[in-house]
Amino acid sequence: MNIAVIGLGIIGGSFCKAIKKYTKHYVIGINRTQATAQRALDSGAIDEIGTPESLSKADLVILAMYPQADIDFVEKNGRFFKEGSVVTDASGIKRAICPKMTELAEKYGFVFVGSHPMAGKEKNGFDVSDADLYKGASFIITPCKTEHKYVEFLSDFAVSIGFGTVKISTPEEHDRMIAFTSQLPHVLACSYVLSPCCPNHNGFSAGSYRDVSRVANINSTLWSELFLENKEPLITELDILIENITKLKDAITADDKKTLTDLLEQGHRVKEALGE
Amino acid sequence: MNIAVIGLGIIGGSFCKAIKKYTKHYVIGINRTQATAQRALDSGAIDEIGTPESLSKADLVILAMYPQADIDFVEKNGRFFKEGSVVTDASGIKRAICPKMTELAEKYGFVFVGSHPMAGKEKNGFDVSDADLYKGASFIITPCKTEHKYVEFLSDFAVSIGFGTVKISTPEEHDRMIAFTSQLPHVLACSYVLSPCCPNHNGFSAGSYRDVSRVANINSTLWSELFLENKEPLITELDILIENITKLKDAITADDKKTLTDLLEQGHRVKEALGE
Repeated sequence: MNIAVIGLGIIGGSFCKAIKKYTKHYVIGINRTQATAQRALDSGAIDEIGTPESLSKADLVILAMYPQADIDFVEKNGRFFKEGSVVTDASGIKRAICPKMTELAEKYGFVFVGSHPMAGKEKNGFDVSDADLYKGASFIITPCKTEHKYVEFLSDFAVSIGFGTVKISTPEEHDRMIAFTSQLPHVLACSYVLSPCCPNHNGFSAGSYRDVSRVANINSTLWSELFLENKEPLITELDILIENITKLKDAITADDKKTLTDLLEQGHRVKEALGE
Repeated sequence: MNIAVIGLGIIGGSFCKAIKKYTKHYVIGINRTQATAQRALDSGAIDEIGTPESLSKADLVILAMYPQADIDFVEKNGRFFKEGSVVTDASGIKRAICPKMTELAEKYGFVFVGSHPMAGKEKNGFDVSDADLYKGASFIITPCKTEHKYVEFLSDFAVSIGFGTVKISTPEEHDRMIAFTSQLPHVLACSYVLSPCCPNHNGFSAGSYRDVSRVANINSTLWSELFLENKEPLITELDILIENITKLKDAITADDKKTLTDLLEQGHRVKEALGE
């Protein structure tokens, strides 16, 4: 089949490379910066540099830009999409995407199925994209009223390019869980490295520092957008986190070893119950 | 030389295994639980199961118990230590250890040099100890008034068993930096996994979740002691962290994209300046 990938950053670029590595599908790459599209073509990650008009021959479209840019693109170019083609996005928020895309799908005659590949790196851009970025990762699908056969189609496609598991969810559940598993660690990492101690950590640090700070090397434009579009669930998680840190801090301040040990033991038990 | 390692958990056990793997020194292991000492002997990690009396033949003593237990041990058994032998601890706090140990060193005629191997795992005990736990890691030495030749002796020893770098510090600097690089990530990890979302993370999580939560599988007894003995620097770091998280939260609450992007950009720049 013909697959169009729009936005050739780390996410879109990795889709292209995985499709070329693991399947025989034909890949059309569309990117705002033409030099990047050319690099993708030269490296064999795509078979063709496309234009919006090329979408008329795409059976599957993967939108891999920022969330708002995905919507803007479809609003502007929806008329070029092939009738009955399946369109998915790869963005990290779903409530802000799914209803609008479902509306656009009805208007332009394509099928929308939301999705979110659970993988990334601390760097961005086509140059760090990787055919095996998604290997073994979770692929979250938010069907958004779509018929089951399309969900199954997208699920089979994800597995064919290396994803390890497919998780079906609702936009609401997705956004609440992602606030915890992905957005909160990014807020944390940035807050953490703002300590005046951070620039002098060398020689005093090991795995704990490395792990907590890893994602602080953040794409501030993308993540600002993701945070603001997932405001309520993220603030809920931030409040819970601040409350729990404060409980531990209060126990330390009060020299209350029993409460402190109990709180740490609760954390220990959560991880142990998960077998981690 | 004869080296005594007291406390055969992950830290002490890894010292024993590294010494046996990389040097020809003779290792005497002392442990409260005899079954563990026997496992260490059977696995070749130590050459002999010792008693406090055995310390009279040890040229180097590594105390690898909990901080207070290290002090208690030396108070009780200092009279057995060999005149002029070098004694170090491996504990994660230094202000609570160094002055007391220096006092005991004068009393019993040994030489104390504080140290802290910057390595660990999310699990504890002899069974997860590893000859290469310290490979390439930083070895922090807090000389505490000791003559330079003993610092050099301990530094050479650390490099000989695989440590990558030696960092000389004061107890004050050590404790302030460790509050940031090691203790804060442990408080964070425990606070993080206490979110009601945590038990359901599977399918919604990837590297960010894994990294932030890794050390939450904590030894609550050990870390309570470390936190309380490093109370002031840790509370300072907790206050800074809560303040920074709150700034980000306030920007999200106010839909203030500019402030939010600026804060994230600050984090990004710290990591970039460090080349990480």
